[in-house]
Amino acid sequence: MERALQLAARGQYSAHPNPMVGCVIAHDEEIVGEGWHKITGEPHAEVNALAAAGARARGATAYVSLEPCAHHGKTPPCIDALIAAGVSEVVIAMADPFDRVDGRGLDALRAAGITTSVGLMADEAAALNKGFVSRVTRRRPFVRLKVAASIDGAIAMKNGESQWITGPEAREDVQRQRARSGAVMTGIGTVLADDPALNVRTGELDTHGLQPLRVVLDSRLRMPITAQMLALPGATLVCCCGSHDISPLEKAGAEIASYGAAGDTVDIAAVLKDLAGRDVNDVLVEAGPGVAGYMLERELVDELVIYQAPHIMGSETRTMFQTPSWLALADRKVLDVHDVCQIGRDTRITARVQY
Amino acid sequence: MERALQLAARGQYSAHPNPMVGCVIAHDEEIVGEGWHKITGEPHAEVNALAAAGARARGATAYVSLEPCAHHGKTPPCIDALIAAGVSEVVIAMADPFDRVDGRGLDALRAAGITTSVGLMADEAAALNKGFVSRVTRRRPFVRLKVAASIDGAIAMKNGESQWITGPEAREDVQRQRARSGAVMTGIGTVLADDPALNVRTGELDTHGLQPLRVVLDSRLRMPITAQMLALPGATLVCCCGSHDISPLEKAGAEIASYGAAGDTVDIAAVLKDLAGRDVNDVLVEAGPGVAGYMLERELVDELVIYQAPHIMGSETRTMFQTPSWLALADRKVLDVHDVCQIGRDTRITARVQY
Repeated sequence: MERALQLAARGQYSAHPNPMVGCVIAHDEEIVGEGWHKITGEPHAEVNALAAAGARARGATAYVSLEPCAHHGKTPPCIDALIAAGVSEVVIAMADPFDRVDGRGLDALRAAGITTSVGLMADEAAALNKGFVSRVTRRRPFVRLKVAASIDGAIAMKNGESQWITGPEAREDVQRQRARSGAVMTGIGTVLADDPALNVRTGELDTHGLQPLRVVLDSRLRMPITAQMLALPGATLVCCCGSHDISPLEKAGAEIASYGAAGDTVDIAAVLKDLAGRDVNDVLVEAGPGVAGYMLERELVDELVIYQAPHIMGSETRTMFQTPSWLALADRKVLDVHDVCQIGRDTRITARVQY
Repeated sequence: MERALQLAARGQYSAHPNPMVGCVIAHDEEIVGEGWHKITGEPHAEVNALAAAGARARGATAYVSLEPCAHHGKTPPCIDALIAAGVSEVVIAMADPFDRVDGRGLDALRAAGITTSVGLMADEAAALNKGFVSRVTRRRPFVRLKVAASIDGAIAMKNGESQWITGPEAREDVQRQRARSGAVMTGIGTVLADDPALNVRTGELDTHGLQPLRVVLDSRLRMPITAQMLALPGATLVCCCGSHDISPLEKAGAEIASYGAAGDTVDIAAVLKDLAGRDVNDVLVEAGPGVAGYMLERELVDELVIYQAPHIMGSETRTMFQTPSWLALADRKVLDVHDVCQIGRDTRITARVQY
């Protein structure tokens, strides 16, 4: 199963919105076939593994990181393929929470007389597909908030100077974070200040042309039609409040949608719900302290990814999160840090936010 | 030599102001005697190791982490003991920068026909005795600045709430940092707000009764005679500017000294020089953002020890360092992080400040 999970992870930049799935076909210790799911619409992990195993699949055990599908989606049901190949046992890491599968795959396998079990490395399997599980079970994408700061928590000087706080390796790593996300979200302030691309630039990542949807929070629709992201491959969704003359921006390539009445700030929870409806599993937020703090205050952030540069920037600086409502120590958020690693000269801290 | 350095480190809480020294006497691979320097005034590492080796020291090699002394201090010269014991070779990690030794030990050993070499694990030996080396070569103690903060760089809420940001293990670790320091320095603001003890409380550390000198920076001599530290074992030095009626504080147990004219702030560089003159090797600064930032701005901090709690405290907080003169990104200080470790739930980052 460990191997099946490794195989599944190969799809991290290309399989979404589908879950990552890996499959290993084995006779006892001997692996006779391996497969993983690469791109939505193309064959699933089980079918690829069965094809690799050929006739040797008969009587074998299939290890699958997610419950095989029982329905006709873009490809035929995987349980049919497993049954036809004559496997005698299927070991599944986790049941598929997607309501068109959700136990049906298991039932069908058992009905065909195949021994099945569920739960081997279930936590690891769920962690791998946090975004997919979140979208399907919570109707909200898994939200990662990325921040680059100094060791004393500054993201910029008060005068706005902030370029290259973190090093090139950290910026490369952000490309990987973007590539595994269905959407990248920012605020209009960041667009006006930095005109970011928010795309996946590196040629080394196997994204198969996928670009995250770029989402701009822009209550008063100040998005300039000259913003560079509008000219780049991939789509841009501008989220505003109230009604505006949207035709110039639409002509420039953006989609505009309203998430609140004129004068309000964008209802980010509603945007996230909408993104789940658009099959976005993972959202990467790359925004300034205003949007970042707003989302933390409203408990809309699942995970923090902090790139910490080995610098002291001092007091004449801007802080990571604007949280005007947190006045007492008891308002602070406790983090469950699950990964700390060195990325070039910087430290990357990945942590779940406890609410 | 690695073993000699391990032995030397055993004196970290008790040997100062003397350097930590370890000694191993060996015939090829076989160790016949070990020793380390425990308390100033008691036998040195070499004498302890020779005593353990007895007659087997004859013809052996002595590995010593610091050049043996050639002068009569509180104990007789170690080179005499090494020569008398008949060792044939002495391998030394680093020469002693102390001007009463500084090469004399080496010369005397060579004159006695003993093979000597210097430099094996010299960097490790110098790192072990950073404080001693700093005092002797720079006439200034090695200055460590300790801060406890959240992951977003806050040390307290704006309303002052700050108790227990870091966990009990981190507070235990601060006891060890104090125990290896000849002085602990703070500002009067911290004394008035928290009435800290600044002593070594734990019974588990082998300090042999040593307590760091407590140093309070207090320009206008506002130190209350009721401050708890004045009633604790160990001495307190209150540093003020100008002249004051010092008799009540003196009666309460403090020593008062002036480091600047009335109306000035205390000249911390002068205080540090004075502490070196009082044989303080290592100073631990445990102060608020005012003193901490002031010392960073003036390049008086050698090493930062940051205890980082896995919390997000947000924007309505106090920052780690008040650095009003750092207005541009180029003013920031780059750190050379040389140790990151987990202390309970918190992360301890130890870093040299690059100037």
